[in-house]
Amino acid sequence: MQEESGSSSYRPLEPGCLFAGAAERRDDRPGHTAVDFPVAVVLPAGGSGERMGLPTPKQFCTILDRPLISYTIQAFERLSWIGTIVVVIAKENHDLMLNIVRKFNHTKVKVVHGGTTRHRSIFNGLQAFSNTSDDSLTPKPKVVIIHDAVRPFVEEDLLLKITLAAKEQGASGAIRPLVSTVIATTSEGYLDHSLERAKYRASEMPQGFLYDFIFQAYQRCSEFDFEFGTECLHLALQYCGTNAKLIEGPPTLWKVTYKRDLAAAEAIIKETLSMSAYIITEDDAEAVKLAKTLQKNLATLNMMVTDIIPCAKEINSDSLSKTLNFIQISENGSNFSGVLEMVKSFEDTNHSRLYPVVIVWVQLNMTKQSFDTQKADDLKSFMGLASDVLQGNILLYGIQIDHSKVPEQWERSVERLAQITVALIRDRNAALTGQMLQA
Amino acid sequence: MQEESGSSSYRPLEPGCLFAGAAERRDDRPGHTAVDFPVAVVLPAGGSGERMGLPTPKQFCTILDRPLISYTIQAFERLSWIGTIVVVIAKENHDLMLNIVRKFNHTKVKVVHGGTTRHRSIFNGLQAFSNTSDDSLTPKPKVVIIHDAVRPFVEEDLLLKITLAAKEQGASGAIRPLVSTVIATTSEGYLDHSLERAKYRASEMPQGFLYDFIFQAYQRCSEFDFEFGTECLHLALQYCGTNAKLIEGPPTLWKVTYKRDLAAAEAIIKETLSMSAYIITEDDAEAVKLAKTLQKNLATLNMMVTDIIPCAKEINSDSLSKTLNFIQISENGSNFSGVLEMVKSFEDTNHSRLYPVVIVWVQLNMTKQSFDTQKADDLKSFMGLASDVLQGNILLYGIQIDHSKVPEQWERSVERLAQITVALIRDRNAALTGQMLQA
Repeated sequence: MQEESGSSSYRPLEPGCLFAGAAERRDDRPGHTAVDFPVAVVLPAGGSGERMGLPTPKQFCTILDRPLISYTIQAFERLSWIGTIVVVIAKENHDLMLNIVRKFNHTKVKVVHGGTTRHRSIFNGLQAFSNTSDDSLTPKPKVVIIHDAVRPFVEEDLLLKITLAAKEQGASGAIRPLVSTVIATTSEGYLDHSLERAKYRASEMPQGFLYDFIFQAYQRCSEFDFEFGTECLHLALQYCGTNAKLIEGPPTLWKVTYKRDLAAAEAIIKETLSMSAYIITEDDAEAVKLAKTLQKNLATLNMMVTDIIPCAKEINSDSLSKTLNFIQISENGSNFSGVLEMVKSFEDTNHSRLYPVVIVWVQLNMTKQSFDTQKADDLKSFMGLASDVLQGNILLYGIQIDHSKVPEQWERSVERLAQITVALIRDRNAALTGQMLQA
Repeated sequence: MQEESGSSSYRPLEPGCLFAGAAERRDDRPGHTAVDFPVAVVLPAGGSGERMGLPTPKQFCTILDRPLISYTIQAFERLSWIGTIVVVIAKENHDLMLNIVRKFNHTKVKVVHGGTTRHRSIFNGLQAFSNTSDDSLTPKPKVVIIHDAVRPFVEEDLLLKITLAAKEQGASGAIRPLVSTVIATTSEGYLDHSLERAKYRASEMPQGFLYDFIFQAYQRCSEFDFEFGTECLHLALQYCGTNAKLIEGPPTLWKVTYKRDLAAAEAIIKETLSMSAYIITEDDAEAVKLAKTLQKNLATLNMMVTDIIPCAKEINSDSLSKTLNFIQISENGSNFSGVLEMVKSFEDTNHSRLYPVVIVWVQLNMTKQSFDTQKADDLKSFMGLASDVLQGNILLYGIQIDHSKVPEQWERSVERLAQITVALIRDRNAALTGQMLQA
């Protein structure tokens, strides 16, 4: 997807919430000081996905081999000031959900079963805190945030505002401007009147509540509310007299509703993961030169080089928290021991648990070499290695580049190298791992 | 993007409107008999794209190197019962728009300049028919359809319903259920009340009108309407007493509003273009065998083989209207003359004008061969050819597969061949053309 006028201002939609998830939880985040009371989350995820026309409920559809709900959980779990996350699911998805919790190492999640409607499910979720006063995992929170499992891109900034407003006012909710005009219809299918757009807003998630208020509202509400109500904010108003504070959220709050929304979410995630890369040069002079030219070329394609480092051993957990993409340049003739080392360190740190890590191995040929059997064997073992590490969520690709003394030719080759590198990193396609491409 | 439970039921969102555009206009379409009166279109496209945070107005953002507005124009142009399409653009985009019309050969388009608001732009568009009574290109239509330039996936079926209802009732418009609850807010930013979702709908495009009615409505309407009105249907009601018939449209009607919507539109377009492929075997027995196995493997990845044909010469305009993807299998040692032939025929038929055509050249190695200089030269000329044909919107990729007598090994190779083929066709990435991959 490109803009006609060049893509230099093609900014990522959502840099914060996704990638911070790959980093360690830090205690210097703003919420840590602002929120000095217990906050918990209820994530109703009992939907069936009928609207999408998919057999899999949309919260369990995967992006880069990871279910959507895991991204949403992570958006909360990474925040130190947020405690238990109660995920409410249909009974038949119990095992599936437990597998997800295990595979992606979600440590704050408590799974409970939903009811027949959304409101019953939320009520079940809230009861998890009241029923288990002696359960240390689910102490009663001061504020509870209710969110949708299918809105994975919720930022700390908004969560803070929602939480603090809920503490102050009793209830709060995110809103967005209306995209379409809303009209009232007659029973015969004709236009009755259209609403004045400026006076209305779309009510979105997250919403925040003083736990005691919303729990009371649910205890008081009618069967009709449980069956047909659509708005928690409305219940809080009706049964507790709490006027919710409304807070304008960003467009990324949108709900993954249709199949096209999954594609949009995938694009956002892939773009966020592909903003930067490390280059490792193995301390070789020619490789360092190439690294610097490549850095410039990548910049024109909107990929930032975080750092050029001589050795894979220098990659520590801090660098790992900055990017998931690694370009290793070696002179031809050398084997891929550097790549192996890197793979090993990623396995040790569990770095690829949440997102696939990409390694692009660039082979720089300084002299014109003829193809030989040795080379064919090397290619085979490279493919074998790529296939092995794919199991650990590491995507390994190779690119050969022939050095040329003709400046224009060399420039063209490096340009191609950058284009192919960016294409591989952005697409993160498992089917192309192990290939040795030609720049 | 995959579903957890396997992707066998991953159905395309939008098969009809896009791809029929690549075919010839056929006169046996339903609308040709049902609509026996002149129908024209006004496409307001003066928006600035501010909402997306993009420097390029969204209607000019490109997907597969083609601006969004060209897809929308094509959705109308392909229908024989639709006449002139008046595109209303900001003056500064005049040349850009004319270039698009020329490049993608839009034959029904008339470009006019917009006003300062959406309603003024639509009025300008409508005036194009009244001002030029002696201009044969823009005769006054009976019914005019107003649509958004950024809703590219509008189907003939809905256009027919809108058109016929407009003829009958004077006005008609597409609606969709509300995705979010709509709430009224107090001036202090608190919840006032929430609307009962069942009674309201989102008003979408297209809308249809008797030309004389809507033109009269615009002539009568006030400065305030021109400045702040949001709904053509409302103007028709207010100034002509016409109660619009509302027609429920499909989810694909949605408006490309945010940057993520561009990604979603790209995914829909790519998926629609990638549903099927031809296989060309060059009349070789081993190639035919491989073609049959490949066909089965592609089917499990949801790619249908339209036909297996012996020779590229058999591809005619009819086959060209069925798919944009061609897999040519040749035994190793043969050169890519078959590929060249195919490229030539595509150039003659202008087949790649609207969408990039993909050719995957599969080289089947029956015997273990050593790499030699000849081979390296072949690779270079393949890359050169790929780079040439890319100018003509043809994406050429190569895949080598080594025949094996060990059944399990051979099965695995063909499986990989299918996976790589599908990955290349689905992603349509220009940066990877000319590569020779290994299955």
